[in-house]
Amino acid sequence: MPSWGWMLPLVLVLVLAALAGAAADGQTERNCSASPPYLPSTAVNTSVRLQELRALMSPLDLSAYIIPATDAHMSEYISPRDARLAFMTGFTGSAGTAVVTPTKAALWTDSRYWVQAERQMDCNWELQRDASVSSVAEWLISEVPPGSGIGFDPFLFSLKTREDYGFALMSSNHSLSSVLGNLVDGVWKERPAIPPDGLVRLPDRVTQRSWQMKVEHIRSEMAESPYKPTALLLSALDETAWLFNMRGGDIPYNPFFYSYTLLTMDEIWLFVHAHRVTEELKVYLNASCHGPLCVQLKDYDSVLGHLQTYVAPPGVKVWIGTEYTNYALYETITPEEKLMTSSYSPVLTTKAVKDETEQRILRDAHVRDAVAVIQLLTWLEKAVPGGKETELTAARHVDACRSKQQDSRGPSFETISASGPNAALAHYSPTAETSRPLTVDEMYLVDSGGQYLDGTTDITRTVHWGTPTSMQREAFTRVLMGNIEISRTVFPTGTRGVSMEMLGRRALWEVGLNYGHGTGHGVGNYFGVHEWPVGFQGNNIAFRAGMFTSIEPGYYKANDFGIRIEDVAVIVPKETKYGHNYLTFDTVSLVPYDRKLIDTALLSSQQRRWFPLKIPLSPLKVEVSL
Amino acid sequence: MPSWGWMLPLVLVLVLAALAGAAADGQTERNCSASPPYLPSTAVNTSVRLQELRALMSPLDLSAYIIPATDAHMSEYISPRDARLAFMTGFTGSAGTAVVTPTKAALWTDSRYWVQAERQMDCNWELQRDASVSSVAEWLISEVPPGSGIGFDPFLFSLKTREDYGFALMSSNHSLSSVLGNLVDGVWKERPAIPPDGLVRLPDRVTQRSWQMKVEHIRSEMAESPYKPTALLLSALDETAWLFNMRGGDIPYNPFFYSYTLLTMDEIWLFVHAHRVTEELKVYLNASCHGPLCVQLKDYDSVLGHLQTYVAPPGVKVWIGTEYTNYALYETITPEEKLMTSSYSPVLTTKAVKDETEQRILRDAHVRDAVAVIQLLTWLEKAVPGGKETELTAARHVDACRSKQQDSRGPSFETISASGPNAALAHYSPTAETSRPLTVDEMYLVDSGGQYLDGTTDITRTVHWGTPTSMQREAFTRVLMGNIEISRTVFPTGTRGVSMEMLGRRALWEVGLNYGHGTGHGVGNYFGVHEWPVGFQGNNIAFRAGMFTSIEPGYYKANDFGIRIEDVAVIVPKETKYGHNYLTFDTVSLVPYDRKLIDTALLSSQQRRWFPLKIPLSPLKVEVSL
Repeated sequence: MPSWGWMLPLVLVLVLAALAGAAADGQTERNCSASPPYLPSTAVNTSVRLQELRALMSPLDLSAYIIPATDAHMSEYISPRDARLAFMTGFTGSAGTAVVTPTKAALWTDSRYWVQAERQMDCNWELQRDASVSSVAEWLISEVPPGSGIGFDPFLFSLKTREDYGFALMSSNHSLSSVLGNLVDGVWKERPAIPPDGLVRLPDRVTQRSWQMKVEHIRSEMAESPYKPTALLLSALDETAWLFNMRGGDIPYNPFFYSYTLLTMDEIWLFVHAHRVTEELKVYLNASCHGPLCVQLKDYDSVLGHLQTYVAPPGVKVWIGTEYTNYALYETITPEEKLMTSSYSPVLTTKAVKDETEQRILRDAHVRDAVAVIQLLTWLEKAVPGGKETELTAARHVDACRSKQQDSRGPSFETISASGPNAALAHYSPTAETSRPLTVDEMYLVDSGGQYLDGTTDITRTVHWGTPTSMQREAFTRVLMGNIEISRTVFPTGTRGVSMEMLGRRALWEVGLNYGHGTGHGVGNYFGVHEWPVGFQGNNIAFRAGMFTSIEPGYYKANDFGIRIEDVAVIVPKETKYGHNYLTFDTVSLVPYDRKLIDTALLSSQQRRWFPLKIPLSPLKVEVSL
Repeated sequence: MPSWGWMLPLVLVLVLAALAGAAADGQTERNCSASPPYLPSTAVNTSVRLQELRALMSPLDLSAYIIPATDAHMSEYISPRDARLAFMTGFTGSAGTAVVTPTKAALWTDSRYWVQAERQMDCNWELQRDASVSSVAEWLISEVPPGSGIGFDPFLFSLKTREDYGFALMSSNHSLSSVLGNLVDGVWKERPAIPPDGLVRLPDRVTQRSWQMKVEHIRSEMAESPYKPTALLLSALDETAWLFNMRGGDIPYNPFFYSYTLLTMDEIWLFVHAHRVTEELKVYLNASCHGPLCVQLKDYDSVLGHLQTYVAPPGVKVWIGTEYTNYALYETITPEEKLMTSSYSPVLTTKAVKDETEQRILRDAHVRDAVAVIQLLTWLEKAVPGGKETELTAARHVDACRSKQQDSRGPSFETISASGPNAALAHYSPTAETSRPLTVDEMYLVDSGGQYLDGTTDITRTVHWGTPTSMQREAFTRVLMGNIEISRTVFPTGTRGVSMEMLGRRALWEVGLNYGHGTGHGVGNYFGVHEWPVGFQGNNIAFRAGMFTSIEPGYYKANDFGIRIEDVAVIVPKETKYGHNYLTFDTVSLVPYDRKLIDTALLSSQQRRWFPLKIPLSPLKVEVSL
């Protein structure tokens, strides 16, 4: 699944087209200028909750309150209990910012979500068709009296978000105030509770390094740092999960549990909802002792207070990764010389390079995953001409195929099963409303992945069961050429993905085509499907042997079709004629491409030679007997 | 000519090898541990000047004084009168930092210059084999008492240098103090004077836009900025030169004159050495009136005072480009809301895109320049077997060939004429000491360029007059493949060079080869040969049609040979089958490559097809009748 967070202008073109289509069916969207205003049945009445929120803002002297979409761990996916933006606005899209003032309420979101927002919000809310912090800040400057309070929950702001607001408001007489205790939670009576259990340790067969070994390794990285940190604060949920070889079930599609870790040279504090830690886990974690390899369990909500206490005496220095630490914890670490920052913590950079066991079992998971996807594709090839299958039935089928595989733990994200024009929409997953029947006349794109105890998978195939147009074949072939060009590239250790991602686009560029999403992201062993900081974007780290990344160029023709070819590859050492320390990609996804869509005349001889080494260039009529 | 400012580790390998060679001839370097110390004849006696400098430091209570290598305009090349580092230390390399304390003196420079420093410095000076600010700061922390003054001339520090020192000294009790009035100038009795004249306006035949049109255009960019700057401060020497269509001769190889410009919506202040402005130029500049298109001439040295006066009243905001503004001017613009920054001023980003006239005449200059280089290469091919030619005679020959071309204004940098192992050295130019005879047994690299009234050129060719080894042919061919792969690439408007520069390396990487310098830099109409901000590095801006850049991959085998193939290309629109706003490169360098060094079996069919469209793939025995 691609990261769509950038190149929105291109996405915009696609979505404007979708909007134009949707506008014909005006009944599904609100009309606040009608009298009385028209609200579709999908709109949520937010009058009472807004009134209650304003009642909480008033004694705090707040002229505005900002509500972001993320959680305290800067998670990509959030738990239902963190869906504060959705609760307040009715809008359930994954990206957006809301601001409430005593008299107004406004939501900012990007073009992917404008139609959805018009369907889900009532007329208490303005929709701002812009997702930038500068747009929110401009609105605040015009709506809020200078010098008055603009509140935000510092647990829900990243450092960068906080800085962006600071910069955008700099030349006005406005500034933000941290408000501890989330005001939305104060009015959200039916806020989902923390699940009572669900924390597990991984079985030994899927780990090579015990948590004690990992702790010692991270401590050695701390000791080697010239800045001499005395502690490391872990905020991202996969950091703590990785360090202790534990998983949970707090976030949909992501086997994480709410947690922070504060690690020093001789103590370990794990902040979790303590009642969820079983006796067995306490033994596993050495939770009853005090010592360098004893885990002291502290309540999740005590992290801020504990950090305040830790940084009070002189001589301490806390290392944080700025990309995942929230502003509340960051601003607690003062004065500045007690802070040490890097973009990513040493846990994330260490975790990015898989050890031998992790590499082996992640490859294994991809073999089983390929069986499921090949089962889907062979079934569809037979079933589609019958005329009864839809995007939804196909999505259910692949989910079911995966669930039968060993160690399956469900899908790693909501399956994107998209036919014809739906495949050209960013972030499309079928619903009962939108699901198209599958036919031999349309291209079909399926982007899906599985969570397995040993690994996370993510793969996209695009197929045509009838006769593709020559433009479809050309576009598919050029997308494939992009995939191959990246996959076969040899590069020195330390090369960054962003320096080579244009290879995924070059064959498309040659004929004036392009795509509006990232070219790949890290993937790992039973974590989130977008496993940062590996990948091809500007904020990804340099490639080293043992990292896994998706490679997923695409092409999208608005109102017509969408193509994406996504494989996962591991970075491996490559012997070269003259040099040392060179790397290349070894594809671990094992599902064939649709030969019908490949115009082999476009391929270079090197590209043609790539196939026998990698993935059989065969028709989909493959007999699966894995 | 490549930019070597990065990837120093690779350069290091080459230079360490050179060092090993040089060490055999110990007489040429100082030996401060001998008794008495041995000093070669090339060493400069700095005892008196150091004593005098310390006498100036003492009343200012300075425990250290930092002497950088640049000038007040962050120029890449400096005038002899700005060679303060060389005056104080004896060391004449282009990069370095010196620090003087009451009892010690130390020079920091990178590996390219260690041998040179040991030859030129006397034993007053320590050589620190590291060029980083953090190394200087560490030394300061250990040598200077906490809390005492570390002085620097803020006119000679960039913002970034100042920030780097601040960061490196942060956790110690040390900080820098701006000292106005350069202390080195105070002891430099024979400091070269400003040349009395040399300012000229460009003839109309080489300009399309009058200075008045340029001023109006830049004002429109200021008006469009959402930050509403009231003034623009221009500090880089090519900014003022471009704006007024004027040139000078203050800097070797660079047709610049000392200047700053402060531009508001209705006034223009030009800071120059006023006595150098002729009556004719005063008329040209409308220097006798006050109004939006009248240039008010102010003395060069009054810029700081004038800026202080300008920023005193409320409501002003000065736009600066942070890459070229010195710290003295930057720190004058307070408080912060009176400052607006971008990496590059709108003059530099506007100048980067050449207008129709500039494009036409820059192509023209490359035609004449190609004649000179082809004359060199054909002459060498006949003369070298005679055994009398050397690196120096070849360099002189190409300089002479260029000087006969119309509108020649001399070389654009010191010609790199390097045979055999000398070509593997970064920043090599032949001297009487180092010049090798040219023979049919060694490869030869010539990197040279010319200044012409209509354009600046820069081209590198590598040839072999005998029989190259198979490794030499392979390396040359792969360097050429890199040049072709960039040159033939089609990409959307707005793509950054840094995103595609790996295409210059990819064919080398495939066999484990690489190079340690940048892949290309901007070139323009009679400016510096490295014309920022265009190019392939991380701090270069996105490509747009009308920009000119060099493309110059290479390969260097220590103690053996060096290869570089450098062309200049203009970015041009490219029609594509499906899309709009695509670009590609059109090579304007017209000198053939040495066919003997090309292994055509390595080239792809697309690479072979590139030649007839671009540069004839012909032997060098071309009859020149241009």
